Amino acid sequence: MTRLRLDVGYDGTDFSGWAAQPGRRTVAGVLADTLGPIVGGVRNLTVAGRTDAGVHATGQVCHLDVATDRWAALAGSLVHRLAGLLPPDVRVFSVTEAPEGFDARFSALFRRYSYRIADGPWGAPPLRHRDTYAWPRRLDLAALQGASAALLGEHDFAAFCRRKEHATTVRAVTELSWRRDPDDVVVATIQADAFCWSMVRSLIGALLPVGDGRRPPAWPGSLLARTVRANEVVVAPAHGLTLVAVGYPQDPADLARRAEQTRQRRV
Amino acid sequence: MTRLRLDVGYDGTDFSGWAAQPGRRTVAGVLADTLGPIVGGVRNLTVAGRTDAGVHATGQVCHLDVATDRWAALAGSLVHRLAGLLPPDVRVFSVTEAPEGFDARFSALFRRYSYRIADGPWGAPPLRHRDTYAWPRRLDLAALQGASAALLGEHDFAAFCRRKEHATTVRAVTELSWRRDPDDVVVATIQADAFCWSMVRSLIGALLPVGDGRRPPAWPGSLLARTVRANEVVVAPAHGLTLVAVGYPQDPADLARRAEQTRQRRV
Repeated sequence: MTRLRLDVGYDGTDFSGWAAQPGRRTVAGVLADTLGPIVGGVRNLTVAGRTDAGVHATGQVCHLDVATDRWAALAGSLVHRLAGLLPPDVRVFSVTEAPEGFDARFSALFRRYSYRIADGPWGAPPLRHRDTYAWPRRLDLAALQGASAALLGEHDFAAFCRRKEHATTVRAVTELSWRRDPDDVVVATIQADAFCWSMVRSLIGALLPVGDGRRPPAWPGSLLARTVRANEVVVAPAHGLTLVAVGYPQDPADLARRAEQTRQRRV
Repeated sequence: MTRLRLDVGYDGTDFSGWAAQPGRRTVAGVLADTLGPIVGGVRNLTVAGRTDAGVHATGQVCHLDVATDRWAALAGSLVHRLAGLLPPDVRVFSVTEAPEGFDARFSALFRRYSYRIADGPWGAPPLRHRDTYAWPRRLDLAALQGASAALLGEHDFAAFCRRKEHATTVRAVTELSWRRDPDDVVVATIQADAFCWSMVRSLIGALLPVGDGRRPPAWPGSLLARTVRANEVVVAPAHGLTLVAVGYPQDPADLARRAEQTRQRRV
């Protein structure tokens, strides 16, 4: 068998998330159904960021194992063939042989997401309404940036996570920045080693009321003292969220070591 | 009556173009149906760029005349009200009282369009496939730019226009430039005083085979010598095209004069 790395993008609007589920249209399901017949079966399809229903991706990464002889026959033409077979809301940007020790999920050093918010009184731009949340009040970027600073670094993000048994909620957030694009859309970028379930949407949901002045700037950071989910946080909707990048160690020799570290830490 | 200027955007995918047609979903139809009951009737709805089915807009401009007392009562809240009433694929960004002499169509100095092309083997980005044309061969921006230079200036664009009786096909193209965006999408920007029917899509259709090396760089410019439509030009599809801006004289005193000039010239 040969392990392949796939770089993937999708419009999450019409998918019930990444993970295959019987009777639902999912990204993993569509990919496996399309790739399977070409490569002679897909094994161990594993994703870096298991996105929820409605969440998009421009920089998703997954791996899968295929028969080495089938891969050898296909390598040069697979991306182009997939372009013709996949629906337009999911694309495979590249397929490469993964280096020894590569695991799309456990070798990852970081995940980076963006969250798009239109705060004009007219709503979201028509050509981007599928990936832009319309917020009814103007946002102050300096206030958002100030409140975000307290959330940087390694913390227990229990206040911002849906509970999972025996799973740590300690995460290291390395970037949480805000910008306003030329089309007037406000974009948050957030990067961490990993995110627990609903964490990005909860952080955005805690920051937006600071941006429009209804909560004090210290409020989101103060929630880090909690040991359980903060029910006052209104989780921002899925459709504003896009997984934009996943980072891996530059040196292939570090891939297996990183995967081992991550596995130990999560359990 | 008071004349209003509306700045409008739309995703053209699910519209049969701008102009109202019985039994079809059109942008003008949706706008008139939504605005009519609020402003007590819409008169003289007139658009700067009459886009075809499937063509988008981020910077469309139109005017309409409404009863002055209704406008006075609504002015401050109209954009926000329309945001709640219009479908997400059409937005009104602003509504302002038009200066004396303003005519959205005839006062315009220029129209600017963009055309988006994805030339990677994977196809169009999933979140932008509605407004991006997937071209199967890589494009050379220098070749595109070189061939475009010959099309700048005032020419008879008969080769690139669908015939309309008694209408001139002389137009002045003031910009025709190409760039590659960070997401690898190639974007053409083209500006002229006005465009005849199908002109932008025909120009793009003539340039793309230069970009991938199948036609010599001098070919699109050589077509300017023709006096009738060039049937070898494959018109690029509607969904890559977006009206991004319409320009008007800065000085309100010039609005009526410009409208008068334009009317004389077209007839």
